[in-house]
Amino acid sequence: MKNTDKNFLKERTLIDDYLKNNLPTTTKYGQSLLDSMKYSLLSNGKRIRPILFLRVVRAANIDQEKFLSFAGAIEAMHCYTLIHDDLPLIDDDDLRRGKPTNHKLFGDATALLAGDALLSLCFEFAAQPLPIEPKLQLMMIKKLACLGGSKGLVVGQQVDIEAEKMTNQATNSDILEFIHHHKTGALILASIETAAIATKVSAKTSQILNNLAYYLGLHFQITDDILEFISSEDIIGKDTFSDRKNSKLTYPKLYGIDLAKKKSQNCFNKIIKLFNSLPAQYHDLLDIINYMSNRQR
Amino acid sequence: MKNTDKNFLKERTLIDDYLKNNLPTTTKYGQSLLDSMKYSLLSNGKRIRPILFLRVVRAANIDQEKFLSFAGAIEAMHCYTLIHDDLPLIDDDDLRRGKPTNHKLFGDATALLAGDALLSLCFEFAAQPLPIEPKLQLMMIKKLACLGGSKGLVVGQQVDIEAEKMTNQATNSDILEFIHHHKTGALILASIETAAIATKVSAKTSQILNNLAYYLGLHFQITDDILEFISSEDIIGKDTFSDRKNSKLTYPKLYGIDLAKKKSQNCFNKIIKLFNSLPAQYHDLLDIINYMSNRQR
Repeated sequence: MKNTDKNFLKERTLIDDYLKNNLPTTTKYGQSLLDSMKYSLLSNGKRIRPILFLRVVRAANIDQEKFLSFAGAIEAMHCYTLIHDDLPLIDDDDLRRGKPTNHKLFGDATALLAGDALLSLCFEFAAQPLPIEPKLQLMMIKKLACLGGSKGLVVGQQVDIEAEKMTNQATNSDILEFIHHHKTGALILASIETAAIATKVSAKTSQILNNLAYYLGLHFQITDDILEFISSEDIIGKDTFSDRKNSKLTYPKLYGIDLAKKKSQNCFNKIIKLFNSLPAQYHDLLDIINYMSNRQR
Repeated sequence: MKNTDKNFLKERTLIDDYLKNNLPTTTKYGQSLLDSMKYSLLSNGKRIRPILFLRVVRAANIDQEKFLSFAGAIEAMHCYTLIHDDLPLIDDDDLRRGKPTNHKLFGDATALLAGDALLSLCFEFAAQPLPIEPKLQLMMIKKLACLGGSKGLVVGQQVDIEAEKMTNQATNSDILEFIHHHKTGALILASIETAAIATKVSAKTSQILNNLAYYLGLHFQITDDILEFISSEDIIGKDTFSDRKNSKLTYPKLYGIDLAKKKSQNCFNKIIKLFNSLPAQYHDLLDIINYMSNRQR
């Protein structure tokens, strides 16, 4: 285990245990659906988004273990997008985290339904009692639903698909930022913003966290694009040529690998600058920021 | 317009207007996603589930117009299931309500994403402020998510797909009831139960409403099976042979058309008996019950 990984071991275990204990496991009929959900949700995920959420909660000196249900909600949403994204009618990927994708094992129909069920489960988790005013929790749910839907994550996926057919480079840089900001950034933003709502942060801190989330999402995706471009199948654990095969719009494709790396570095500098302007109690965000930025998968 | 339809005109208009005014309509990129969502959500739906919800709310002498956001949430959930169900990897239907299915117009990928976005939109609507204690609203959201997911609607879809491969008739009648209770019944149950939570009905009334919802869902689906079996494409507005083509398990297939009709009648008798045992203020449920039971599409 790497040093950085150790820093997240406790939170990962808490999140994994919550998911394991709260995922429906038996049903009179339709067991494959639950097995399919379990296969993807309890796979070896990095749990970056729920950890981000928990760390922003923790910064307010609040017991993060009481917020595991909402952390689980965020992970369930992330998980459903991966299953649907891998389907033949979208990315058609065979591998995810070094293992067969959900539909490769369970079939396309069950994978589709497992994704649907995980999105419902996300909101079942999100509505579990939290130790805050219920009114704030409703605002958190609305924020998660909004950033997870057609104003956030899903429109990012839509444009990602459409971008394959586009040709004009000048427009493309704008589209690429839109894709990353929505497809990847929205759920990172949701993880941070819902925690900010729960902990009633000041308007000033909220603004910094919001900007931080924006660049964190962008940087995360540029890193993903670069890894996808240079890594071997062994390291990244999925078919590294799938995006190129599908002619997806990516940073290395649009700018070349060197400029993509430079943009990545600029983005990271902005993140650190924003982090430094946060109140001291947010210090625990630093190692997750570093982890997200230096990851090899 | 039929007489029965007139009884629902006001509610349908309210629901349609809510959806129309609250569906995102423009985006910088990815406009097809919003067009695809709009195409299905603002199609000529019967709005049965949100009307059921509103009528149970109204029975408590509460202004139903303040609950349109939650009614819209229920309809958005219903709509997403139709889009995903029609996809080639599930039912592969070309027509819905006499018009091309979503994927036929927008393509499989966009249809999949439109369904995903509608499910998120469902919870965005569900979390809009209601004139009740926020704690109750959280319980409503949890109930909707639970009945809409792997313990309700989605597991019903899963078993519906799996049932095609099953052969034993003794087991099949149990499976068929499971499918109908989950695939169709769960959202009808959710429509009624969430309204019961919102209006804090007594335990006794809640139990009757719960049973009523159960038989209403079952009856609704038997009716659907029978219509599917006997109707022409003109009346039902979708490819009437799709279920038979896919060897789906249905009441007419399992029992023959006459016994299916008899079972349907028995089920309706139970519904009326339950309705008669409800307090008088629920009288407005009767015409929606009759409408659901006598529909031709």
